[in-house]
Amino acid sequence: MLRFLTAGESHGPCLTAIVDGLPAGLVVDVEAINHELARRQGGYGRGGRMKIERDKVEILGGVLYGKTTGAPLSLRIENRDWANWRDRWAAGDLPKLTVPRPGHADYAGMVKYGLDDARPILERASARETAARVAVGAVAKLLLAEFDVVVGSYVAEIGGVVGQIPDLGWPELWALTEGNDVRCPDTEAADRMRVAIDAAREAGDSLGGVFAVAATGVLVGLGSHVQWDRRLDARLAQAVMSIPAIKGVEIGPAFENARRPGTQVHDELGISNLQSPKVIRTSNRAGGIEGGMTNGEPVVVRAAMKPIPTTVTPLRSVDLTTGEEAATQYQRSDVCAVPAASVVGEAMVAWVLADALIEKLGGDSMGEMKGHQS
Amino acid sequence: MLRFLTAGESHGPCLTAIVDGLPAGLVVDVEAINHELARRQGGYGRGGRMKIERDKVEILGGVLYGKTTGAPLSLRIENRDWANWRDRWAAGDLPKLTVPRPGHADYAGMVKYGLDDARPILERASARETAARVAVGAVAKLLLAEFDVVVGSYVAEIGGVVGQIPDLGWPELWALTEGNDVRCPDTEAADRMRVAIDAAREAGDSLGGVFAVAATGVLVGLGSHVQWDRRLDARLAQAVMSIPAIKGVEIGPAFENARRPGTQVHDELGISNLQSPKVIRTSNRAGGIEGGMTNGEPVVVRAAMKPIPTTVTPLRSVDLTTGEEAATQYQRSDVCAVPAASVVGEAMVAWVLADALIEKLGGDSMGEMKGHQS
Amino acid sequence: MLRFLTAGESHGPCLTAIVDGLPAGLVVDVEAINHELARRQGGYGRGGRMKIERDKVEILGGVLYGKTTGAPLSLRIENRDWANWRDRWAAGDLPKLTVPRPGHADYAGMVKYGLDDARPILERASARETAARVAVGAVAKLLLAEFDVVVGSYVAEIGGVVGQIPDLGWPELWALTEGNDVRCPDTEAADRMRVAIDAAREAGDSLGGVFAVAATGVLVGLGSHVQWDRRLDARLAQAVMSIPAIKGVEIGPAFENARRPGTQVHDELGISNLQSPKVIRTSNRAGGIEGGMTNGEPVVVRAAMKPIPTTVTPLRSVDLTTGEEAATQYQRSDVCAVPAASVVGEAMVAWVLADALIEKLGGDSMGEMKGHQS
Amino acid sequence: MLRFLTAGESHGPCLTAIVDGLPAGLVVDVEAINHELARRQGGYGRGGRMKIERDKVEILGGVLYGKTTGAPLSLRIENRDWANWRDRWAAGDLPKLTVPRPGHADYAGMVKYGLDDARPILERASARETAARVAVGAVAKLLLAEFDVVVGSYVAEIGGVVGQIPDLGWPELWALTEGNDVRCPDTEAADRMRVAIDAAREAGDSLGGVFAVAATGVLVGLGSHVQWDRRLDARLAQAVMSIPAIKGVEIGPAFENARRPGTQVHDELGISNLQSPKVIRTSNRAGGIEGGMTNGEPVVVRAAMKPIPTTVTPLRSVDLTTGEEAATQYQRSDVCAVPAASVVGEAMVAWVLADALIEKLGGDSMGEMKGHQS
Repeated sequence: MLRFLTAGESHGPCLTAIVDGLPAGLVVDVEAINHELARRQGGYGRGGRMKIERDKVEILGGVLYGKTTGAPLSLRIENRDWANWRDRWAAGDLPKLTVPRPGHADYAGMVKYGLDDARPILERASARETAARVAVGAVAKLLLAEFDVVVGSYVAEIGGVVGQIPDLGWPELWALTEGNDVRCPDTEAADRMRVAIDAAREAGDSLGGVFAVAATGVLVGLGSHVQWDRRLDARLAQAVMSIPAIKGVEIGPAFENARRPGTQVHDELGISNLQSPKVIRTSNRAGGIEGGMTNGEPVVVRAAMKPIPTTVTPLRSVDLTTGEEAATQYQRSDVCAVPAASVVGEAMVAWVLADALIEKLGGDSMGEMKGHQS
Repeated sequence: MLRFLTAGESHGPCLTAIVDGLPAGLVVDVEAINHELARRQGGYGRGGRMKIERDKVEILGGVLYGKTTGAPLSLRIENRDWANWRDRWAAGDLPKLTVPRPGHADYAGMVKYGLDDARPILERASARETAARVAVGAVAKLLLAEFDVVVGSYVAEIGGVVGQIPDLGWPELWALTEGNDVRCPDTEAADRMRVAIDAAREAGDSLGGVFAVAATGVLVGLGSHVQWDRRLDARLAQAVMSIPAIKGVEIGPAFENARRPGTQVHDELGISNLQSPKVIRTSNRAGGIEGGMTNGEPVVVRAAMKPIPTTVTPLRSVDLTTGEEAATQYQRSDVCAVPAASVVGEAMVAWVLADALIEKLGGDSMGEMKGHQS
Repeated sequence: MLRFLTAGESHGPCLTAIVDGLPAGLVVDVEAINHELARRQGGYGRGGRMKIERDKVEILGGVLYGKTTGAPLSLRIENRDWANWRDRWAAGDLPKLTVPRPGHADYAGMVKYGLDDARPILERASARETAARVAVGAVAKLLLAEFDVVVGSYVAEIGGVVGQIPDLGWPELWALTEGNDVRCPDTEAADRMRVAIDAAREAGDSLGGVFAVAATGVLVGLGSHVQWDRRLDARLAQAVMSIPAIKGVEIGPAFENARRPGTQVHDELGISNLQSPKVIRTSNRAGGIEGGMTNGEPVVVRAAMKPIPTTVTPLRSVDLTTGEEAATQYQRSDVCAVPAASVVGEAMVAWVLADALIEKLGGDSMGEMKGHQS
Repeated sequence: MLRFLTAGESHGPCLTAIVDGLPAGLVVDVEAINHELARRQGGYGRGGRMKIERDKVEILGGVLYGKTTGAPLSLRIENRDWANWRDRWAAGDLPKLTVPRPGHADYAGMVKYGLDDARPILERASARETAARVAVGAVAKLLLAEFDVVVGSYVAEIGGVVGQIPDLGWPELWALTEGNDVRCPDTEAADRMRVAIDAAREAGDSLGGVFAVAATGVLVGLGSHVQWDRRLDARLAQAVMSIPAIKGVEIGPAFENARRPGTQVHDELGISNLQSPKVIRTSNRAGGIEGGMTNGEPVVVRAAMKPIPTTVTPLRSVDLTTGEEAATQYQRSDVCAVPAASVVGEAMVAWVLADALIEKLGGDSMGEMKGHQS
């Protein structure tokens, strides 16, 4: 069983993560992890924080001579911004934030944890935490890559601008995606997305959107139909929904499928004309999962992200100390983080698949796992 | 921590469930559980099986003098249909099912479990299993009711017929819903849904749809933003996505929210004019969850169900024994199960909320829990 | 991951268990399970209840044509004694038990669960529950047997009578053990154990003792040193300590080892003289586990059982209703249950090893697991 | 649910831990944590490493203005020794360790993780890892202290020297214990223990022993009898057995109790003469746990530690690369670590109790927990 925990505040010294359950012998390519961290930092519409940070992972445990040893991986990502906050944290004289911002964890968190200040809540309920997840997911991607599983994503919508996704294979789509800062493979829609982001910024507003994560090369039979909490679609839904601001998840185009008759939805099976015939499909409306198990087609997860809840335009709220109505005050934020979130989505999908693959193949080293696969 | 496991095959002797972690002193109203079971069995568009079954729960453990004792609850629901299958199971002469049906667990399950027969897969990957979940969820509902939390649902769409949900409170919506066999509170749309189901039946086809589950009276602060797997939206997503044929989940109207600017999405806070002023909201686009925690508004989960994968019209597939193309053969099935699935959705949402409530309040008996609440 | 939950009261209708995570294709030999149940029922010193019961397992799910399907196993063991209690349970007129018996769960359970009657506690905190565990463990044994792992036990001490265990291999010891009703391979000590049991019965007293469970044929590397909760010795300790009345657990002769210098404790390694040389040991003071992992030697777990807390001789206690001192009243019980407990110990050890083996080998069917092993 | 993971190698840069599930509002006294770390480092019979290290905890997350926020706690303990190893790790030219040392994780770890070098194994399977546990346990102690639960320990045996523990209350015993470097409250035995340690050092040998951990002030009803894995004795056994070199665990004097008749073992209940009468006991042979639940008496856990497996005197082993017999080579080590292990034992017991207390009381902040208690 693969497990991870993350810790760290947005303006604290660093983010940390511990990953338990990796096999021994996995080459941990630090630059590959840093590449994923950089992908998360990019995207049109990001705010000032991303100009400060240059995320790099430090490995504090679990690796010897460049390979995992089976011991837990210990990861650390420095917060450069910490230098600007350190003294104020120590002095304890940061002003209290007593007006919860709609759409944020502020209100629920203050009530839950018995606080008269939202700061301890927003320090943790911050998208910054996802940097740690991306580092963890990057390791999962390295493991998956050894089994020819590749995870990528694209942005499908931003603020109501819906991309027309070209009818290409996933690698081709991803190539188009990596080349642009809204990560949408429809280049014409990408332009309109940038315009929409600019307009939202000018209006003191924010935007959400939809992204799709896919994994290719996944073997048949990850997850199981036999018990509710072992279904892979359910685990993917949990993992992707756990990303801050993600409020909707579907496997394949599920809400669209729900409007069609069965004969137009279910992916028929055929036989390839190869020398060694194998089962093929000509459609993948199931998003690669049937009965809670992978069916050999690409796993496709789509996610709906709400607009960033921090808006320059004040929203109505209440000062919880005085009990009087008050307007929210702007905290530094992004206008749109859908491109970044799609990278976090990849991390979480990679995580779930790596966990399921390890469970399926067993084995305590990469060599043993590979031996089990063949 | 509340846990449950279910077991049992569709045409085996019974379904069983064990629920561990309930407080002592909960009155277990067997008729209330049976009522939920009956609600699951209803719905326009169900097939022949539901004519055979009259689901009743039997309690085999965990209850003394009508109340829970803290010991695990043991539930059993008889399969009446078992009488028709018993001898053939014992004889072992049921024909092998070697042509996996698209959209079912058949193919992935056969490959995963190394079988040349889909029967052991479809016996478990059957909607019948959800009867056990409904019984478990009914107990969760009984617990929640003691804390004034009520869980209900309605059907929003069937086969592309989209209901216009009246602007009413949840209790009023549910009253409209319970009164009709497609469980849609828009009575005009409900008529068109029935027509669509009839048409699909005639066409040898099947339909899916969308339902919404809501919980009212939920206290603030269930779930947490602090760790990815403790977010309540993520847990709800897992639980609801785990229902067979559910492929999409959203908290509130998430995919619609993703198209709007932040100022039109986030639910502003106000103060009520009551003697003891409290925080109120005039909208609930967040579906009752901010930062992965309940915020005091009704929790709203919407789910997309794919059309039933069993269709009278054959679909193309492959005989996995011969490796040759073959058409699927029809097995007895429903045409549309969205109304039934909405009841299962209630059960899973109730489950997650009961688990979170127990964690939040602590206590080992109903009395202690209630003492902790006040 | 292998999971199981049990449910059921001592005088309720039945015990049930659900086992989740078994591979498909395991032949479930019902007679082998019943044989284990019979072994648990035996033993010199048992009370009246065992004359009533003739435990037989019923399989309600997870098996088709005699083999597991990957679906959860559902087990049921009828309580014959139920016939004698049914009406009184229904009438609810059983007298309250308000004087907690020292050494039982009565006092802590009443306080914890907020009860003024110990009956709901003792119904579950009963050795009867272990019948369900033995059934579950019997299935684990069947799985292990397919990998040539055999689990057995013997009784080492009863009431201070310490057996001199002959210097024989485990199969030989077990052969001596199965042949006698105190399960001690030292036949002379066995006689004295019976005498001690008889004396205790006459004195209105009860006895405990020590047993040893061993598993042979275990492959190297189950468990792990890398994280505290993955150590196999820790998991074995949890599993065996969870048996009612077990209060001490050691891996190998740990308390004796603690008194010796390191050079006399640690098991040196050598090389066998076989054609294909392999690592051997001439001692096994580590009980088959080093660094929290199996090392290829037999896994040996010893457990200390307290005397049965129910004694004919009254013990001083308090009536929790009146707050006045009172003497305990005798409930039907055994005088000594160490032989029975050793069978339960086997079940729990088998369970832990089966879980670890499945994790190590991966695979979803017996065929796949075996392929992974070679 | 309280969770923690640790990471870090013995000669790597640091140890890290993440603790998830703490309530908000707990004052995190860094000096109290450092005090526990210092206690672990002490003890007669420690080796050279402890002269290098001066363990101090650094808090990298989860605390704001000196209090927990509900967010996960991130802890780091620097390895001073890292400065001596850093370059050799980077260069990757450390000699391979191919001769597994009996009693260590070396052999099982190499086989499990597919390695031809024991170094990656012994780096993690090192007592150094327990520093992270002590830091985590120190936080658990801080939480428990707020509920008047105190956890302490003493050493009962070293190398066969058995202390005669004076008949004093736990606080008095602990006062005697903290004052001496073998942590045994029998000062005469303590002298003989030092002599035994010196003799073992001279002989190139090592010693183990037995320690007892106790917790006072524990409320009734932590843990549960209802399901095997919820018993507190089982959880304590797992936690304490998971400490490196611990091979035996008992709750109270279990192995001794196993030799006595029931009437001499079970702790009778009485009523105190106080104004508000309460249940009392005059003995605690059950070690504070009945039916898997705390009964209000001090929780007492005794543990048997094997002698340190590293001995100056070589042990016979095999070079796994050549397949030839070879003698072990000495690595820097302690002669006796029982006093240090008793401190780790406190940490693990504190952990289990804090987890159970949080589950029992519920609540997300210290204020809420305390409100629930009364």
